[in-house]
Amino acid sequence: MASRLITLTTDFGQGSPYVAQMKGVLLAIHPQVSIVDISHTIAPQDVLGGALVLAETCHHFPRDTIHVAVVDPGVGTSRSILAARIGDHTFVAPDNGLLSVVAKERPLHSIVRLENREFWRAEVSHTFHGRDIMAPVAAHLSQGVACDDLGPCVDEMVELEVPSVQRRDGTLQGTVLAIDSFGNLVTNIRPDLIPGDIDREKLRITCGSADIQGMTTTYGSHRPGTIVALIGSSDRLELAVVQGSAASVLQATVGFTVNVQWDPQVHHA
Amino acid sequence: MASRLITLTTDFGQGSPYVAQMKGVLLAIHPQVSIVDISHTIAPQDVLGGALVLAETCHHFPRDTIHVAVVDPGVGTSRSILAARIGDHTFVAPDNGLLSVVAKERPLHSIVRLENREFWRAEVSHTFHGRDIMAPVAAHLSQGVACDDLGPCVDEMVELEVPSVQRRDGTLQGTVLAIDSFGNLVTNIRPDLIPGDIDREKLRITCGSADIQGMTTTYGSHRPGTIVALIGSSDRLELAVVQGSAASVLQATVGFTVNVQWDPQVHHA
Amino acid sequence: MASRLITLTTDFGQGSPYVAQMKGVLLAIHPQVSIVDISHTIAPQDVLGGALVLAETCHHFPRDTIHVAVVDPGVGTSRSILAARIGDHTFVAPDNGLLSVVAKERPLHSIVRLENREFWRAEVSHTFHGRDIMAPVAAHLSQGVACDDLGPCVDEMVELEVPSVQRRDGTLQGTVLAIDSFGNLVTNIRPDLIPGDIDREKLRITCGSADIQGMTTTYGSHRPGTIVALIGSSDRLELAVVQGSAASVLQATVGFTVNVQWDPQVHHA
Repeated sequence: MASRLITLTTDFGQGSPYVAQMKGVLLAIHPQVSIVDISHTIAPQDVLGGALVLAETCHHFPRDTIHVAVVDPGVGTSRSILAARIGDHTFVAPDNGLLSVVAKERPLHSIVRLENREFWRAEVSHTFHGRDIMAPVAAHLSQGVACDDLGPCVDEMVELEVPSVQRRDGTLQGTVLAIDSFGNLVTNIRPDLIPGDIDREKLRITCGSADIQGMTTTYGSHRPGTIVALIGSSDRLELAVVQGSAASVLQATVGFTVNVQWDPQVHHA
Repeated sequence: MASRLITLTTDFGQGSPYVAQMKGVLLAIHPQVSIVDISHTIAPQDVLGGALVLAETCHHFPRDTIHVAVVDPGVGTSRSILAARIGDHTFVAPDNGLLSVVAKERPLHSIVRLENREFWRAEVSHTFHGRDIMAPVAAHLSQGVACDDLGPCVDEMVELEVPSVQRRDGTLQGTVLAIDSFGNLVTNIRPDLIPGDIDREKLRITCGSADIQGMTTTYGSHRPGTIVALIGSSDRLELAVVQGSAASVLQATVGFTVNVQWDPQVHHA
Repeated sequence: MASRLITLTTDFGQGSPYVAQMKGVLLAIHPQVSIVDISHTIAPQDVLGGALVLAETCHHFPRDTIHVAVVDPGVGTSRSILAARIGDHTFVAPDNGLLSVVAKERPLHSIVRLENREFWRAEVSHTFHGRDIMAPVAAHLSQGVACDDLGPCVDEMVELEVPSVQRRDGTLQGTVLAIDSFGNLVTNIRPDLIPGDIDREKLRITCGSADIQGMTTTYGSHRPGTIVALIGSSDRLELAVVQGSAASVLQATVGFTVNVQWDPQVHHA
């Protein structure tokens, strides 16, 4: 399962030399590897934010890509670091839940706990395991080292609690999981939670001061400034302001409640 | 016209997982391709800003580079998506004017409208054609697919109105087109609009509260804090504050008026 | 000393098309080169900040990597541009001190002043030598051109004054050199300045309103919100707030004073 391709997801911030140090370590071990940034603007220590970005992005990459994720408030404590085979991809990350969203959505084949120091940097700092353990391990994986050589197999990983959708008769109560750079509010409501026989134009979607009648299909179909609800590119309900920012207009943050309602009579008829 | 090199220009914001999703799609189709970011900090929906960045940057890349540009407020509506051969390069972008600046400055050889779904992702979302149409098309182009196979030829594309320079006797009235990260004000005034027999040290340049006597050649030639006017690296008149930000000092924004004046008697003499 | 790998460190800002223009120039000359960004978020004109980032990051890259650094407030003036062989790496930068920190920490083998225009762009602007001189020179170096062919050897380069640590009996007085994206304060105090026979848990570290008793080893070992002092991943004393920002909590900036004290009796005993 050697791979020429490694992705990086961190909370180090754009332009951080810490990211470049990881790339240097990767390339010093495996000069032919290709490195792609998924994101370095995960909010500091936001493990759930990182887990969601990773889960929604990793599967677009080629089979056998190695994904390294470092959002690691517990660096230097006894939390483990894992390598895992999930779906068709390989992941390296601290055992703090960062891989638990992708592991819920794809088949989890195996997990090992990194213990074999032969594949680490000679000197390991207390504060930067991304550079000193995870990057060198990923570089060795990309050269064909087997996961099993990295340490003992383990049975489970830390799981994050992802806010779940509450269903009652005629209502879904969901949550804003993420806000993208356009200010679109991305929720935890998947379209298959909405009964298929309900006319989507008759749904009522509310969030903060927004009260939206009917779902639309794309941003461009209404006049600038209109608040719309639609299924976004990650197959989740989104609230957006056409050519504006729903986050600003609604003063919404991650964790905001979003309700989707329909007339249960219609559904039961 | 296969190429190993693809550039990306978007308004997705730095660190956006949407950019990474496009890269995953590109690499999943063509693993050997090299991807270079031109910019992802185009202001949201600022088609003119994206068109200008693309026009001033693309020609520095090697012949046959494929440039993908996604600033696309009309995503999901009936606007077309184009592939075009302009100068020695290939471009993929929505037909909203994003390619019109580069097409005005370089020879426009051919335009096709993307219609052949064989080169798209199997599932196309309503809101992210950059990932689902433009990235896969660019990956196929980089593998040698011909533009003509992507859809029918068309004769024209949407043109943006770029603010033009007003010329009167002894005066050029121009506009700030862009503000760079140093706060330099980049205008639409090209140096060849200034009569060649005018002494550039005798020009008077005004913009907001700035009244500058004479053009200089570089930032470093005056004391920190001085407001200067010079021909910048994109061959346009720029206003700058030495080791400071002209945008802050002059509280200037894109669209600000800039005047260049000279004594018409001198010119006519 | 040809190399497939070139890094870039600039103050151009994230998403700047100037960075992309440099990459285009590099790839147009040497299409097989790999380009890695170290950072483009050096504060504008902050030569010392750039010098420190470069020094702490460059040595993680493979032997013979070519590092191009452009923080260049004197562009267009008579300041020289240098290529230098320092340690196992090659550097290209203006002669304004940007290379002086790395040159103090690694063996400086040779310096040449760029004069041979054969390896520059045909047209050189007054304001963007990064694109017009440094990028083409680096591309030629990566193809195997020798430093000696670029211009005459010189004996010295401009040196920056890096704040030094004051030692008195029982006290080190240092300075915050940098603030990372987590808000950690990175100082100029190296651990070897602290006497080896001093119990690190008995050190007193003060900085602004912070008065910390004893050093810790990692961020994760105290409760969120605690202010801690530790040796960070660059082998320097750092002040951090666990899962928070020391820069915000202490309202600290680069240049802040940090004191480390111990009981000199203990040391002399």
